Amino acid sequence: MESLYVIKIGGNIVDNPKLLNTCLQSFAKLKGQAILVHGGGKLATSLADSMGVKQTLVEGRRVTDEATLKIVTMVYAGFVNKNIVAQLQAAGVDAMGLSGVDGNLILAHKRSVTNVDYGWVGDIDKVNTHLLLQLLSTNTKLVVAPITHDGKGQLLNTNADTIAQSLATALASKFNVHLIYGFEKEGVMKDINDPSSVILCIDRPAYGILKNQKVIFEGMIPKIDNAYLALDNGVKSVIIGQAEKINELINGTSGTTIIN
Amino acid sequence: MESLYVIKIGGNIVDNPKLLNTCLQSFAKLKGQAILVHGGGKLATSLADSMGVKQTLVEGRRVTDEATLKIVTMVYAGFVNKNIVAQLQAAGVDAMGLSGVDGNLILAHKRSVTNVDYGWVGDIDKVNTHLLLQLLSTNTKLVVAPITHDGKGQLLNTNADTIAQSLATALASKFNVHLIYGFEKEGVMKDINDPSSVILCIDRPAYGILKNQKVIFEGMIPKIDNAYLALDNGVKSVIIGQAEKINELINGTSGTTIIN
Repeated sequence: MESLYVIKIGGNIVDNPKLLNTCLQSFAKLKGQAILVHGGGKLATSLADSMGVKQTLVEGRRVTDEATLKIVTMVYAGFVNKNIVAQLQAAGVDAMGLSGVDGNLILAHKRSVTNVDYGWVGDIDKVNTHLLLQLLSTNTKLVVAPITHDGKGQLLNTNADTIAQSLATALASKFNVHLIYGFEKEGVMKDINDPSSVILCIDRPAYGILKNQKVIFEGMIPKIDNAYLALDNGVKSVIIGQAEKINELINGTSGTTIIN
Repeated sequence: MESLYVIKIGGNIVDNPKLLNTCLQSFAKLKGQAILVHGGGKLATSLADSMGVKQTLVEGRRVTDEATLKIVTMVYAGFVNKNIVAQLQAAGVDAMGLSGVDGNLILAHKRSVTNVDYGWVGDIDKVNTHLLLQLLSTNTKLVVAPITHDGKGQLLNTNADTIAQSLATALASKFNVHLIYGFEKEGVMKDINDPSSVILCIDRPAYGILKNQKVIFEGMIPKIDNAYLALDNGVKSVIIGQAEKINELINGTSGTTIIN
């Protein structure tokens, strides 16, 4: 089977024009099929500040009220997505930007309220694999913004790590799918202040131990949970590392590889 | 040849949720191929106000500095485009939102500075007809936001009427293309305050006379100039009228028809 890379780049990359450009140049050189999923970064927060819309974070996750949904739709699906696509086009890549709404790419439902009401946040129900295959068949590189919809006209703010995992999983029976989580750090580190402490490989027993030792905590836990969900559903490999080193992450010379 | 409708809806429609919904329900009922092109409306201006970004209009056209380009990209390609697509999906239409950047759909160049420097405003060079045909072949309804790019990474704010004309013209050899300019009025009117004064049909001699008499003025002139450009390049018909009466405009029972 042909290889396909689903590459998620985090908000800190999107916020840094130089890092983002290096990352996109690296993405542009990739041979074969690829999908880029991006977060939104601090742009949404700074836009909210300038508009006087108060932002609430619960455990690092943005509570999405009506005004915030408007902001993230504008920033993620508008400004960030179209600028990334324009830069990729300039680098000679036939890129197309989509949100989960377009072509019903990602259908979701509003997260139900338990202890926390996250507002207009979506949990994914279904990926339109048919559309993905159709667009990939023309060698288009897709750039996906983390906005989905519920099929009833409601947009939903959706975690970009989860979108990347869902797209990777949806295509796992058609391609050898490799899922890359690119962010600002070298990988999962034993000591967050020591770049040389990158853990090269994490299997399930190690993951349990590292969580107990609080070496892995906060935002890294849902990322690795998403990694295992992908591996359990046929994705060939998951690598976490620096977004601007896409080639090194793919050839295994950088980052942390998650294995079963 | 199969018919294709290129329908442009103006900013006043986009600004009015009820009108927009009626218009989209009407669009959803259309049989056959269709492309919807939308403007941005007052949302961009009100966002600029809330962000403290001063807006300058020259002859009704927005001067697009760096901050304004960011705003129109967010509003047009983000908020407006994705909300329209979500509403069409909810109405059972397989809609996909694109800007001129996506898949290199519309290549443009920055308008050269003559008397006025419009800033990051684009004049269209080339439409990617191949991509349009490919997407239309799966019966996808395209929803196009008026943001283009220069192929070197620069986004450009581009007139939505001109985008509609360019898309219509690009497809004129492959379909019987009908171009509809939908806005808040019944059509081109002899007396702007009298809805019953709609001019049913305007040919070139009449257009000249109506311009001289100042019956047709300001924003209507580029719209009708675009209409003639379309007709001169193989588009079968151009009709100007109320956006929520798409079916009546198509079957000729409403609006103003522009003919050679």
